[in-house]
Amino acid sequence: MSVERSIAIFSPGLLGGSLIKTILQRLPGVEIRVWARREEAAEEVRREMPAVFASTSVPEVVRGTSLAILCMPIQHMPDIARQMAAAEMADDLLVTDVGSVKGSVVADLEPIFAPTKAVFIGSHPMAGSQRTGLANATGDLFHHAACLLTPTGGSRREDVDRLRAFWVKLGCRVREMTPQQHDRCVARISHLPHAMAVLTTLAALHDDTSVLDSAAGGFRDTTRVAGGDPAMWAGIFLNNRSEVMSALEDASGVLRDLLEMLKTMDEEALRQFLVRAKSLRDLLPAG
Amino acid sequence: MSVERSIAIFSPGLLGGSLIKTILQRLPGVEIRVWARREEAAEEVRREMPAVFASTSVPEVVRGTSLAILCMPIQHMPDIARQMAAAEMADDLLVTDVGSVKGSVVADLEPIFAPTKAVFIGSHPMAGSQRTGLANATGDLFHHAACLLTPTGGSRREDVDRLRAFWVKLGCRVREMTPQQHDRCVARISHLPHAMAVLTTLAALHDDTSVLDSAAGGFRDTTRVAGGDPAMWAGIFLNNRSEVMSALEDASGVLRDLLEMLKTMDEEALRQFLVRAKSLRDLLPAG
Repeated sequence: MSVERSIAIFSPGLLGGSLIKTILQRLPGVEIRVWARREEAAEEVRREMPAVFASTSVPEVVRGTSLAILCMPIQHMPDIARQMAAAEMADDLLVTDVGSVKGSVVADLEPIFAPTKAVFIGSHPMAGSQRTGLANATGDLFHHAACLLTPTGGSRREDVDRLRAFWVKLGCRVREMTPQQHDRCVARISHLPHAMAVLTTLAALHDDTSVLDSAAGGFRDTTRVAGGDPAMWAGIFLNNRSEVMSALEDASGVLRDLLEMLKTMDEEALRQFLVRAKSLRDLLPAG
Repeated sequence: MSVERSIAIFSPGLLGGSLIKTILQRLPGVEIRVWARREEAAEEVRREMPAVFASTSVPEVVRGTSLAILCMPIQHMPDIARQMAAAEMADDLLVTDVGSVKGSVVADLEPIFAPTKAVFIGSHPMAGSQRTGLANATGDLFHHAACLLTPTGGSRREDVDRLRAFWVKLGCRVREMTPQQHDRCVARISHLPHAMAVLTTLAALHDDTSVLDSAAGGFRDTTRVAGGDPAMWAGIFLNNRSEVMSALEDASGVLRDLLEMLKTMDEEALRQFLVRAKSLRDLLPAG
């Protein structure tokens, strides 16, 4: 059984929608209340999932819930959080989010809930897709995914444990770290790969797209995430700007090293460079 | 029915082994003769595929074959080609290869066969894997893959058409281009993505591999090919050095553009940059 009696999901996009589907499967009996910005999106939720309450009113959706999860783009979170904080909330309300950046999100949201009975702790389930929207949501998106929790000095252990228990029930492997450790970690393992996929696409195709006709799995996989939502990723890059810039400067450094080896035709150095990359990549367990 | 009566495969690694398995499935009745450098590799072929003749002798393997396919790393091709040219070959022998670079390969191999009755035309099936060896070979590796043929002014139309017919029977979509067009095309669509996967891996993990614990599909896909064979890829990069350097310089240019947008926090330019990459990536049909 879940300790949560009623869960509010804010924004039924790919992540919010996948949360709804996963909760329906894994936490039967728990009430789900969904907030959508547009009435048509709320109506779509009601039509697709009749067991779910959906509304465009923040106070109506948050009423009586024990857990609320913000799933909209991070730049819109503070506004919704302020509407929640001004509404009637249950005494035991725990608020979290699924945003890809934690330093700025936690710094924005923690103070909004500090004067209330609710508490905020950041979450980041490492799951997603280049696809967006409720239509692409699935009930297995979080299975075996890492979920990074970012409590602060102000977080109570019992709240962190409650949040951890929720994500574990959804199938996640939970890790705890500070918001700053989080932002450095995801700059390396998620934001840098995204930026490199974008750069590869632009450099490969900028003056001749006919080469796509010869593409194989290498191009397909290396560039897959470049098909992701531009507005969402612009927000992520800017909100995690200094860590992303640091990772990109490192990439620029190894790119210069590689160009130098090619220029001097240093086959042995090039082979060692590729061996080092292979040994690092081989540390990732098969998917 | 195949016009080929007997096909020689030189080197039963991932590509050669996958060719053997595909020919067994799709061209029943065609004899297959395999050359391996080491007797243990020839023995493995005989054990795994009893219908196949395997030997370490180039003259023995090439004898009577109508089509011979060089599948070893490109730096070893000229030596084997010279041994073939010195051996007894059938009047109608067509020689090809599966190397990832065509300018240097065609320039090396075409003159070796010019004084003989055999002819050489380069092929490059755009199929592979970060895995290597006969154990990972599969009979569906070439299905729907692009296969680039690189005839020269010296190639006869009937030979090109015979080679095309062979790859089509294996399930490939065949394209023809000059060796120089080929090298430019694959630098963009294959060699650049490979290099970028290597750079992403090195930049992401160089000072802390613990971030791997938080990796999701984005890192996995963007870096997959960095697990490829270092010696083979060092050979490919050096044999296609000027086109690879040109593609990497372009990547370096867009990397500088991205760093500048982050530095100046130009959200609108960043969003347009990501929109442009997404539009280009979305041109690739779903896989």
